Amino acid sequence: MSATAPESEYAPTQRTVPTRGRDRAAYDRALVHAILDAGYVCHLGFVRDGAPVVLPTLYARVGERLYVHGSTGSRPLRAAGRSDTGLPVCLTVTHLDGLVLARSAFHHSVNYRSVVVHGTARQVTDPAERAVALDALVDQAVPGRSADTRPPSARELAATAVVALDLEEVSAKVRTGGPNDDPEDLVLPHWSGVLPVRQVLGPLVPADDLAPDVAVPGYLAAF
Amino acid sequence: MSATAPESEYAPTQRTVPTRGRDRAAYDRALVHAILDAGYVCHLGFVRDGAPVVLPTLYARVGERLYVHGSTGSRPLRAAGRSDTGLPVCLTVTHLDGLVLARSAFHHSVNYRSVVVHGTARQVTDPAERAVALDALVDQAVPGRSADTRPPSARELAATAVVALDLEEVSAKVRTGGPNDDPEDLVLPHWSGVLPVRQVLGPLVPADDLAPDVAVPGYLAAF
Repeated sequence: MSATAPESEYAPTQRTVPTRGRDRAAYDRALVHAILDAGYVCHLGFVRDGAPVVLPTLYARVGERLYVHGSTGSRPLRAAGRSDTGLPVCLTVTHLDGLVLARSAFHHSVNYRSVVVHGTARQVTDPAERAVALDALVDQAVPGRSADTRPPSARELAATAVVALDLEEVSAKVRTGGPNDDPEDLVLPHWSGVLPVRQVLGPLVPADDLAPDVAVPGYLAAF
Repeated sequence: MSATAPESEYAPTQRTVPTRGRDRAAYDRALVHAILDAGYVCHLGFVRDGAPVVLPTLYARVGERLYVHGSTGSRPLRAAGRSDTGLPVCLTVTHLDGLVLARSAFHHSVNYRSVVVHGTARQVTDPAERAVALDALVDQAVPGRSADTRPPSARELAATAVVALDLEEVSAKVRTGGPNDDPEDLVLPHWSGVLPVRQVLGPLVPADDLAPDVAVPGYLAAF
């Protein structure tokens, strides 16, 4: 972050300032964190043999750093560890909040919150940071869960690659509200408004082999 | 598609056969279509100045072709039309269906359905195909909606770029079911099972300026 950027915002860069929809772009850290913390799956983009690849994967945020993990045999995670330069990536998280139905086809839109992170993914080798990252990846799904699991064994740790991406070149985009129809379209007879979209969790489905005396823990009680 | 591939499946290629989780990879056309048709937003990856970019955008499927659209000023859509070669892209659609909570941190997972499409995006210039694509983009959100809108004007059409991506190099991945704990972990006291995740739509929010005599049309009655 440059010295001139306010601490509460990420400094815009050439690739985080969109050519279109600039009014929807935001760099506020608290907003970025909230969007990231509300998600489970990101879309991780990287370049392989000159062509783009976009894969869905779990992620977790710890402060100003994101973590993803996977098998040590996975192609992108190997690439992140293979070279001194790491792996250039673009990590994107999107929440769809509504389908915006305007009178005109042209003004149809969606309400959404998204974060795009550009940077270089690097394999995490420090055991303490790896442990923090793996706990965070479990807790991103259900806060409190990592303390109520059997921790990874040495063999499992050896099979798991952890990759870090710093939150430095980051932007958020948010659209909210109703349709923006042209004034001359307001008299048209078409229904207009928003069809909200929400993600809901639960109810819990116990494992087939769950012993009947295992109670639902407090951190899952809401589901 | 090669002559040897069965018609009901996409022919696997080097980049659609994963190095990990091969048992979850599928090439069935009906499955791919169902996953694509259930979605609204894809994540479109491309390479800009040698680095990956992943942006969320609306999409629609028409047969064996996907369409995305945007402003003629958008950088990737300009790139898709600028050269004879089109724009190499990777388009990914993911549905999160559940958080899989195993006894071990290592076996935590998610249930999901995803489709990854590799190919070359090309700008659509034929007016008839552009009209089909733009209708499909509205109907992907709400089937039947495109017939109940004010169609695009010549000015709006001129401002809209439509890009096509053929479904040729395609794979799906699906995980369902409960946690796969190691046998020796089954006696552990940790709750284990699935926290289902669903996307729900509605209830409708009318536009602030909607005239009170405009009824909710039949294709929206379910919401």
